[in-house]
Amino acid sequence: MIRLAGIAVLLGAGLSLGAEPESPVPFPHGYREWAVVKGGLITPTHPAYKAEGGLHYIYGSKEAMEGYRSGKFPDGAVLVYELLETRESAGIVAEGPKRRVDVMTRDTRKYAATGGWGFERFWGGKESERATGGAAQTMCFTCHESQKARSFVFSSVRD
Amino acid sequence: MIRLAGIAVLLGAGLSLGAEPESPVPFPHGYREWAVVKGGLITPTHPAYKAEGGLHYIYGSKEAMEGYRSGKFPDGAVLVYELLETRESAGIVAEGPKRRVDVMTRDTRKYAATGGWGFERFWGGKESERATGGAAQTMCFTCHESQKARSFVFSSVRD
Repeated sequence: MIRLAGIAVLLGAGLSLGAEPESPVPFPHGYREWAVVKGGLITPTHPAYKAEGGLHYIYGSKEAMEGYRSGKFPDGAVLVYELLETRESAGIVAEGPKRRVDVMTRDTRKYAATGGWGFERFWGGKESERATGGAAQTMCFTCHESQKARSFVFSSVRD
Repeated sequence: MIRLAGIAVLLGAGLSLGAEPESPVPFPHGYREWAVVKGGLITPTHPAYKAEGGLHYIYGSKEAMEGYRSGKFPDGAVLVYELLETRESAGIVAEGPKRRVDVMTRDTRKYAATGGWGFERFWGGKESERATGGAAQTMCFTCHESQKARSFVFSSVRD
């Protein structure tokens, strides 16, 4: 009975998010060998410093880089936003440990309810540390939805 | 007579650098699709800020990434150090235009006199703007020579 109730709650949560039965977004193994779309630094004067501070890089899989060029991201395209702590010494801001790895995976069938993208966040860049589970779909999409005209992607490739 | 003298001067310069007949280092087309070895920011408090300030990235060709792993860089490996101006706004340090692109190309035959690496610098990241020509060989190698035990490479791959 308790077990059944638990299942009902999970199903209910899924339905309230408008989600399909959950399709976990795979960890993006090997992303550090992918092309970097761009990088940047968020410093202590930024209002979101506590959550977003540090060096970040956006990486694109081969399919994702095609998507930036054509404007249409094919299924299988993966984008990674990696946020690193920083270590500052003698005027050099260097890379520190990973704070988190955010992933967008293109699958128009599995993630139809969120623009064809599956979202996930991995704390510390660790495969075992899923931050959001199914909730990533709404948590991330709420903001990415504003970029509908750009296939829900904020970034663009550098000149 | 003047023309001959000019040639003699060029040959003399080549010999004084211990160089082979010059083998220009090719421009590293497509390097922005390569893996990033690491990145960082050099800020105004750094003593070499005027020359080195900005966001930098080190990129490695596929062969170069093998070299980082094995400790032996195969011929054809290419490393790129890209230095960008920065644009700062509301606490975000973003990428600006390219300041320069420095290249190391592995060819143990052509560049035997400088540890098997050919060096070049391209101002503004432009193929037409070679900074150093043949002089890059000594100009860059003077410093890289200190890393002989590490195949003359300063950087190492991130964890």
